[in-house]
Amino acid sequence: MNSFGQRFKFTTFGESHGKALGCIVDGVPAGIKVDEEFIQSEMNRRKPGQNAYATARKEGDRVEILSGVFEGVTTGTPISMVIFNENQKSKDYTNIKDLFRPGHADFTYYNKYGVRDYRGGGRSSARETAARVAAGAIAKLMLNELNIEIQSGICEVDGIKGTKADFKFAKASEIFTLDKDKEDFQKEAILNAKKEHNSVGGVALVNVKNCPIGLGEPLYFKLDSQIANAMMSINAVKAIEIGDGIESVHEKGLDNNDEIRNEGFKTNHSGGILGGISNGDEINVKVYFKPTPSIFLKQETIDTHDNEVECELKGRHDPCVAIRGSVVAESMMALVLADMALLNMSSKIENVKKVYN
Amino acid sequence: MNSFGQRFKFTTFGESHGKALGCIVDGVPAGIKVDEEFIQSEMNRRKPGQNAYATARKEGDRVEILSGVFEGVTTGTPISMVIFNENQKSKDYTNIKDLFRPGHADFTYYNKYGVRDYRGGGRSSARETAARVAAGAIAKLMLNELNIEIQSGICEVDGIKGTKADFKFAKASEIFTLDKDKEDFQKEAILNAKKEHNSVGGVALVNVKNCPIGLGEPLYFKLDSQIANAMMSINAVKAIEIGDGIESVHEKGLDNNDEIRNEGFKTNHSGGILGGISNGDEINVKVYFKPTPSIFLKQETIDTHDNEVECELKGRHDPCVAIRGSVVAESMMALVLADMALLNMSSKIENVKKVYN
Amino acid sequence: MNSFGQRFKFTTFGESHGKALGCIVDGVPAGIKVDEEFIQSEMNRRKPGQNAYATARKEGDRVEILSGVFEGVTTGTPISMVIFNENQKSKDYTNIKDLFRPGHADFTYYNKYGVRDYRGGGRSSARETAARVAAGAIAKLMLNELNIEIQSGICEVDGIKGTKADFKFAKASEIFTLDKDKEDFQKEAILNAKKEHNSVGGVALVNVKNCPIGLGEPLYFKLDSQIANAMMSINAVKAIEIGDGIESVHEKGLDNNDEIRNEGFKTNHSGGILGGISNGDEINVKVYFKPTPSIFLKQETIDTHDNEVECELKGRHDPCVAIRGSVVAESMMALVLADMALLNMSSKIENVKKVYN
Amino acid sequence: MNSFGQRFKFTTFGESHGKALGCIVDGVPAGIKVDEEFIQSEMNRRKPGQNAYATARKEGDRVEILSGVFEGVTTGTPISMVIFNENQKSKDYTNIKDLFRPGHADFTYYNKYGVRDYRGGGRSSARETAARVAAGAIAKLMLNELNIEIQSGICEVDGIKGTKADFKFAKASEIFTLDKDKEDFQKEAILNAKKEHNSVGGVALVNVKNCPIGLGEPLYFKLDSQIANAMMSINAVKAIEIGDGIESVHEKGLDNNDEIRNEGFKTNHSGGILGGISNGDEINVKVYFKPTPSIFLKQETIDTHDNEVECELKGRHDPCVAIRGSVVAESMMALVLADMALLNMSSKIENVKKVYN
Repeated sequence: MNSFGQRFKFTTFGESHGKALGCIVDGVPAGIKVDEEFIQSEMNRRKPGQNAYATARKEGDRVEILSGVFEGVTTGTPISMVIFNENQKSKDYTNIKDLFRPGHADFTYYNKYGVRDYRGGGRSSARETAARVAAGAIAKLMLNELNIEIQSGICEVDGIKGTKADFKFAKASEIFTLDKDKEDFQKEAILNAKKEHNSVGGVALVNVKNCPIGLGEPLYFKLDSQIANAMMSINAVKAIEIGDGIESVHEKGLDNNDEIRNEGFKTNHSGGILGGISNGDEINVKVYFKPTPSIFLKQETIDTHDNEVECELKGRHDPCVAIRGSVVAESMMALVLADMALLNMSSKIENVKKVYN
Repeated sequence: MNSFGQRFKFTTFGESHGKALGCIVDGVPAGIKVDEEFIQSEMNRRKPGQNAYATARKEGDRVEILSGVFEGVTTGTPISMVIFNENQKSKDYTNIKDLFRPGHADFTYYNKYGVRDYRGGGRSSARETAARVAAGAIAKLMLNELNIEIQSGICEVDGIKGTKADFKFAKASEIFTLDKDKEDFQKEAILNAKKEHNSVGGVALVNVKNCPIGLGEPLYFKLDSQIANAMMSINAVKAIEIGDGIESVHEKGLDNNDEIRNEGFKTNHSGGILGGISNGDEINVKVYFKPTPSIFLKQETIDTHDNEVECELKGRHDPCVAIRGSVVAESMMALVLADMALLNMSSKIENVKKVYN
Repeated sequence: MNSFGQRFKFTTFGESHGKALGCIVDGVPAGIKVDEEFIQSEMNRRKPGQNAYATARKEGDRVEILSGVFEGVTTGTPISMVIFNENQKSKDYTNIKDLFRPGHADFTYYNKYGVRDYRGGGRSSARETAARVAAGAIAKLMLNELNIEIQSGICEVDGIKGTKADFKFAKASEIFTLDKDKEDFQKEAILNAKKEHNSVGGVALVNVKNCPIGLGEPLYFKLDSQIANAMMSINAVKAIEIGDGIESVHEKGLDNNDEIRNEGFKTNHSGGILGGISNGDEINVKVYFKPTPSIFLKQETIDTHDNEVECELKGRHDPCVAIRGSVVAESMMALVLADMALLNMSSKIENVKKVYN
Repeated sequence: MNSFGQRFKFTTFGESHGKALGCIVDGVPAGIKVDEEFIQSEMNRRKPGQNAYATARKEGDRVEILSGVFEGVTTGTPISMVIFNENQKSKDYTNIKDLFRPGHADFTYYNKYGVRDYRGGGRSSARETAARVAAGAIAKLMLNELNIEIQSGICEVDGIKGTKADFKFAKASEIFTLDKDKEDFQKEAILNAKKEHNSVGGVALVNVKNCPIGLGEPLYFKLDSQIANAMMSINAVKAIEIGDGIESVHEKGLDNNDEIRNEGFKTNHSGGILGGISNGDEINVKVYFKPTPSIFLKQETIDTHDNEVECELKGRHDPCVAIRGSVVAESMMALVLADMALLNMSSKIENVKKVYN
């Protein structure tokens, strides 16, 4: 159950403080040029330790390709990528070895499996998302060939909502914010929480341009249901919204429907998806991240021997996981679209014949 | 791509105005008593034509079991159920044969497949959800054996939010509302929209009691990601929220974390899921439905020959799809949990041995 | 676990003596003309009760399409087909209700599921293969569009081997034999076994012409491994052979390798598959059927209460299941190839672009 | 398409002359002790370069576990294993860079993917089976917990058939032969072929003891169909036989049926599988390997520019791939059974309750 996708499919492995993390990306069409620098640049966007708004933990996050690429080109065979862990401080975790950190998966993993790798959350750590970004970079290389473009940014931090969606600005912003005018306030909120040993939530927006009409496989692999699936699998995500989503609940049908003209849809309340299939308009998805559960304040909990105890965590954590999480959300979008693009190829017999005749 | 689930798996078929709809439910453990009256009573909860708040279209929605049950008990073989369509008025749709109704899947289906069954939306019609409710009823029969209980209701209509979650009241309410004090206002909003040939949105809450700890298969079949997947696959759903979800974005970490005592979690901001695994607390999920796209007002659109036209629909439609949609959401929850319960069986070798020794 | 295929996927349901059998075929490209007479003609080839060499049991085997076809054309939505059982004589089976017929699945089903539908073997009956033939007919309609042609016949009955592979003759032969010169001997062997209330085994050959190069998805969905999977899932099949298969074990490498010239392979020892991928040559697969386990002679067995008993079956059965089984093998080949043809579409980015640009 | 299994699932990666090979094994229950020495000993059985009957190519085949094991015990998370390639002589292959070796997958890979890693066959090389043996070792560790035992050996080389099945002897034999009396003749056949720069075929027998009744998921994940699938996915395998398989085709029903007594089946013609489900008797499967296609004699072929050429291979190859192939077949059997054991857990609601109550 550590795989995602049907035709463009990836499987990840690895724990926060194990030897390595990585992934196998399977089903990648042959003949795609593999730009290793691009893959690494994607990794670097997610990488911790780069500024005051993220954890001080440093990880090189160097990706090594072990298979599936020959003479710089994909061969159609599985692409395996590995990221060796470098900056593990397992000792940070010996004090929490037996207790369940509130807001974390410690309690559920221990109960489900009977054992757990307590070092840094083990498999449940957001460190695993590094492997998703590596896989997502391969997906982006494929989507590039089809001119599909994906961007992301932060539209809300600690209740401070942006009103603009300037993806260019976001790319350069230390907190990936989409609204220049809100950047200072949002940064301040993060630093305040950090100072107080607390954390804040945030919302990421993922946007897709040039998506062909027809992606999404009704009824149980709809484009929106797979996006929801993908996004909700990211650590700390608690809600997903397609297009106007939550707002549309307060609208009347006439206002929410997107009327159609020859040049396209007049509005885009739907977020580019109708009946689970892309309609050619821009896709917009909002991803809601809860505040980081790792905080450095006293909390009540129990341990593996059913003792009621207090815990006070130490270590290095992001005061707002939404920031780096937005890069992961963007990667997951790429992975979903790559899969959907391959799945849609056989929707009409006419397209099947294009390949065989 | 018309199947859902890994071990407890269902596949649906059928179009709105075809001969029949139905499903095959595969992977159901043998030895479960099949109460056909219960299955029919579930169907009846979703059935249209029962009061002023739903479409006037009447459907008997009689389920017939064709296989998989012998002498009243499941045999472990696939359970096939069929619902013959009775009240088809295909003629209602000849006028929309060539045009794309705004807010509907007509445009995307036509572009994806090159052909479409225009009668009542064909496969994209919410009529298909009847098959989900039939499958969900089988899932509930299995969950009953494990004492897992699922309920649902409406917590918001047209911006009118309830503040209570009285599932008993909801069951009896014509609009399945969870808050008695808001029922009249919500009903009025629906009838007003209906009078104006318009429609309204709404929000359903699905609740699970007695869920065992451990359901959910990290990292890509997490309980919450599969719930999001399942819910987003329902017609007209545009957002999903687990536990405090959207609200948690405005909270600090200390407030959002659920502290743990021996008797359980002190709060339930998480909605009963941590790290993608059930934590034993109640599961709460909110499902956001957009206003019904079928409205009886003039709208601009194009037809299959690229002519820009005006359309004014006729027919019988729900002014608020969230109402009957809540029953479908409850069924999807049952289907997800049944699957997760079977998947979790092999989490520990100790459990594997329980079955074989 | 009642589904087969990844992109062109079918799911079957139904028991020998239940209300109906049927299937859902999912992933069929839109735009294929559906010739219902052809589907029925395929059903009729497998249908029992047509001559002295098959069971006297008569089944109409009328297929009804419930969904997925509109105005004579596939719509890309799931095609559901149902065959109502007509000639059920459940009473024939009350005497075997509690006992396990040797060579049958009674013992294993009962032990696995704790219950069983004893009427005619229930789900384990070869009657289920009617649904495979219906699904296979849809697959053939798609393969026709790609000019891929599949044929089959009987090459051995009760040790009497044919030396020719005349598929045209086989089509007209009552026992589908490939060698005119052996027909009388093979027929005699069958009738003798029938007279003695015993049964005989046989071997079917399935042949594919015009298969494009490239079908088969290494390493775990190879064309030959999926053919083996498909064929071994047919009732009574105990061995599978690709190309020279068993014979090639006695050959030296130099003799077994197929040398290559511009006009193609000089020989076809490989059976048209190299490295799990079709090489463009004819595909040849042999399928070995054991003698029908249903015989009308005294046999020792036990019952569900662990009593040691003798059983002497009654009823109507094929003296040689290979005959009608060859039609099922041909259908399974069509289903595998249809799936592989769709899967192969994305092997190169060049083909992906053909669909999107 | 590089994954196998539903619940106990593995995915492999890697090319013959790439950086590394490896696998991810997913779905392994938590709490199993991981004996790394055992895993390595399994690798060593398959390892080349150990005697005159196998290729002189030496590979250390050291397995490194990267994840999924903590403090010597499985944690329920994916187990990643990697084997770095050490003894690559890519230069051996520059002369065959552009040509298609007869009997190999060169031609089909090149046509399917448009590119190929020509070094040692790349992904199509039997070197990949090292990853299968590593995954199979994990499967065996799980099966040990259920007392299921798997053995294998060689029953035929170059037409010289053994008549005994002495698995203990096979384990110690340099050619894993099951019949002590045939060992010298079989060895001689191999050495003769080697001397003549040719190769020979062979047959492996895989045997399972103590398999519980009930493994196998009808109708499309039957135990025998999945075994056939697994075995046929091994390089050079061209036929599969369950139990008496091919022989049973010449038998009458009365002789082929296995009668049942309270102490078990009187005979085992079925090979331990009835209706696709294990019956508790020993499972016997024969796997037919063609002669190694890599031979050092002149052969006709074409190159990637459609020139007709002669090729004469150099390098180091097994004169009889069946020998080391038998270890791979044994591993694949372990992987199938581990998957089937987990899948079968939910066959009855009674077993589901054992886990949850």
